[in-house]
Amino acid sequence: MFKKILIANRGEIALRVIRTCKEMGIKTVAVYSTADAESLHVKFADEAVCIGPPASSESYLKIPNVIAAAEITNADAIHPGYGFLSENAKFSKICEEHGIKFIGASADMISKMGDKATAKATMREAGVPCVPGSEGIISDFEHCEKLAEEVGYPVMLKATAGGGGKGMRAVWKHEKLKDAWDSARQESKAAFGNNDMYMEKLIEEPRHIEIQIVGDSTGKACHLSERDCSIQRRHQKLTEEVPSPFMTKALRDKMGKAAVKAAEYIGYEGAGTVEFLVDKHRNFFFMEMNTRIQVEHPITEQVIDFDLIREQILVAAGVPISGKNYLPQMHAIECRINAEDPFNDFRPSPGRITTLHAPGGHGVRLDTHVYAGYVIPPNYDSMIAKLITTAQTRLEAINKMKRALDEFVIEGIKTTIPFHRQLMDHPDYLAGNYTTKFMEDFVIEKPKDDE
Amino acid sequence: MFKKILIANRGEIALRVIRTCKEMGIKTVAVYSTADAESLHVKFADEAVCIGPPASSESYLKIPNVIAAAEITNADAIHPGYGFLSENAKFSKICEEHGIKFIGASADMISKMGDKATAKATMREAGVPCVPGSEGIISDFEHCEKLAEEVGYPVMLKATAGGGGKGMRAVWKHEKLKDAWDSARQESKAAFGNNDMYMEKLIEEPRHIEIQIVGDSTGKACHLSERDCSIQRRHQKLTEEVPSPFMTKALRDKMGKAAVKAAEYIGYEGAGTVEFLVDKHRNFFFMEMNTRIQVEHPITEQVIDFDLIREQILVAAGVPISGKNYLPQMHAIECRINAEDPFNDFRPSPGRITTLHAPGGHGVRLDTHVYAGYVIPPNYDSMIAKLITTAQTRLEAINKMKRALDEFVIEGIKTTIPFHRQLMDHPDYLAGNYTTKFMEDFVIEKPKDDE
Repeated sequence: MFKKILIANRGEIALRVIRTCKEMGIKTVAVYSTADAESLHVKFADEAVCIGPPASSESYLKIPNVIAAAEITNADAIHPGYGFLSENAKFSKICEEHGIKFIGASADMISKMGDKATAKATMREAGVPCVPGSEGIISDFEHCEKLAEEVGYPVMLKATAGGGGKGMRAVWKHEKLKDAWDSARQESKAAFGNNDMYMEKLIEEPRHIEIQIVGDSTGKACHLSERDCSIQRRHQKLTEEVPSPFMTKALRDKMGKAAVKAAEYIGYEGAGTVEFLVDKHRNFFFMEMNTRIQVEHPITEQVIDFDLIREQILVAAGVPISGKNYLPQMHAIECRINAEDPFNDFRPSPGRITTLHAPGGHGVRLDTHVYAGYVIPPNYDSMIAKLITTAQTRLEAINKMKRALDEFVIEGIKTTIPFHRQLMDHPDYLAGNYTTKFMEDFVIEKPKDDE
Repeated sequence: MFKKILIANRGEIALRVIRTCKEMGIKTVAVYSTADAESLHVKFADEAVCIGPPASSESYLKIPNVIAAAEITNADAIHPGYGFLSENAKFSKICEEHGIKFIGASADMISKMGDKATAKATMREAGVPCVPGSEGIISDFEHCEKLAEEVGYPVMLKATAGGGGKGMRAVWKHEKLKDAWDSARQESKAAFGNNDMYMEKLIEEPRHIEIQIVGDSTGKACHLSERDCSIQRRHQKLTEEVPSPFMTKALRDKMGKAAVKAAEYIGYEGAGTVEFLVDKHRNFFFMEMNTRIQVEHPITEQVIDFDLIREQILVAAGVPISGKNYLPQMHAIECRINAEDPFNDFRPSPGRITTLHAPGGHGVRLDTHVYAGYVIPPNYDSMIAKLITTAQTRLEAINKMKRALDEFVIEGIKTTIPFHRQLMDHPDYLAGNYTTKFMEDFVIEKPKDDE
């Protein structure tokens, strides 16, 4: 087993990894930028090394500095957390070259899954369903018609140079295809000077549902059920839950098998997540694979009584997994508490936390690196805490989340707590009736005393 | 279901009950003495009524004030928590007379179990094993010899007027009985002017192991496994765990059955705890029954995924229990964090908490009513928090407890955190090898920087 692990990250995930290391009797090394000198991950690690100024590019992303910190402190492994260097193939390779175990995917694996086209091609080879489409530029309208028949309506025409919805057309039946083709090309030409088009199947009422997998060095993989991450704002997940309210036993079985197949096909080692889009007919399509721990991993831990960071460390140390799949025994919800003003377009709100009172009690878990007096630096991600509730049923977990949000006091900065509180009362959320489009129509009510 | 529950208590248990009420959509009324105006249970309840000055006898124990608060606020039920009025038969009766549901045992049940002699006699009737003994004064030495044969060696001779170990003799074999009889009587005569003696079986290496039960209005009861509370100091529990490291499947089954039998025999309604002493041969003997929620109830909740306060409320509202027994699925440990100085004979340490940082993360639960800036009044119990860790195995739960204790920052007052941290490293504790005598030999090491 590793004697000392360096955590190449900051914030709550650095603390999360330190906690498990402590519980396993493994020494820890924190690295930090000058902006993070007062952060809890620095205080709670056995050793801490400053690796540069506030700018990530000069500290948390600067490979030579991180490697030097590991060498100075004699760390025999590096846990990269999420973000920063966690999916950097070069970093994984350099660790290996320096005889430091990278607790994550190999360089080869990161490269393979990091490039979307390669990842999709690999998944198709493995027999994992991907969003059907033209796989390249459509040569002419005849080609377009043929493709649409193959893919099946509804389809999405997209300009290769497109962006901001320009040059995009959803088409539900053949009679509308010609018009859409012409107008989209025209619009794209005008906007981008290019009218190349490609086609994808339109995913109706898409849900973002991901499967947590773990693979080991023997080539075996298992899945740990799903997480529903459909509640997103500009592709940023806001809250996640397991089980997905949209899940069925049969769908979980199919998605789980597909994810395990994907992992075993590529010989994946470590914890990873296979992200799928699921349409209203419960068809699912591979989106991407994250070769690292996810922000939302705690909800999985809660419902299957499993420490995923521990598992990452064990697998990296060569311990084989049991191979059995895990099904959710409870219901868990995570709310990401960000230092943002939900009444002001989620504008970041860094600064000093003057008062902090954490919620607690039965079924409440809080993962946070902040404390009263802590100054949130403006340089990094605005997430300051993950509030997780666990209960026998979804409704109980929601009610627990409401009361935990009500108890949570953070003063001195703005946070997304009021947004989550409103979300938990939204009829469609309560009904489990939401897609990735949910936030587009969500209107945040300003509190009366705030006007 | 109840619309509004008044919580006739303070501190963490008042908050605990409020939390579950909120999750169940039930309105809450807090009562408080003037010393507790700034307490969280007052802030988090929907309504709060001041019921008197700091002295418990003038506030939390003053029945007319509590009843008046319930009537003013139109509460339809009262949850008494533990301590204070929770096992007061008169209070239970007065609630009933006022048409307010008492979420606890009936007056009759409290009386029956509140008197030790009656409780033991009832349990003997029900066939629950009690500590064998003379059941009264021993008439002469011949009687003493006969009793010792019946009870079985070792036996304990005790002066009825005894105290502080005076007039007490442990006797392991018949040859020693006469000497012990004579000397104990002599000692008792000299010390108390009375040489009446009684006899009890000597419980070798006693462990305090209790069984949580729940009974309903249909007369059905179930058990929720055990809690080992052997780590005590002057009969005050310091830390508890489940499963008991001394437990076997067969013993749990036997003790569980005895506890359920006891509950069903008396027609017990609500949550209760049957406390047993277990000797080194795994014989178990009824000690007493607590007709209320226990301080240490959260460890049971953790290992069986059950909200005991919710269950109390449901049973009080007439909802029948499922009737099945619950076995621990995990391991949980609770450390009671008291405002006491462990390096100074556990002297109370009330005062202002200047800094508070709560531990968190995977498998950590904290139940507390205190916060940074809170002033602990000197008038009440010194417990300020319950720290609970849960994991797959006992060792993992201990390691989690160690790191959680290390993270827990409370400044401004002394706490028992350093004691618990040392306890978690004690070889006998680690081995699960402890009895109720454990603390008699436990030497707390002063930290070097404290000298």
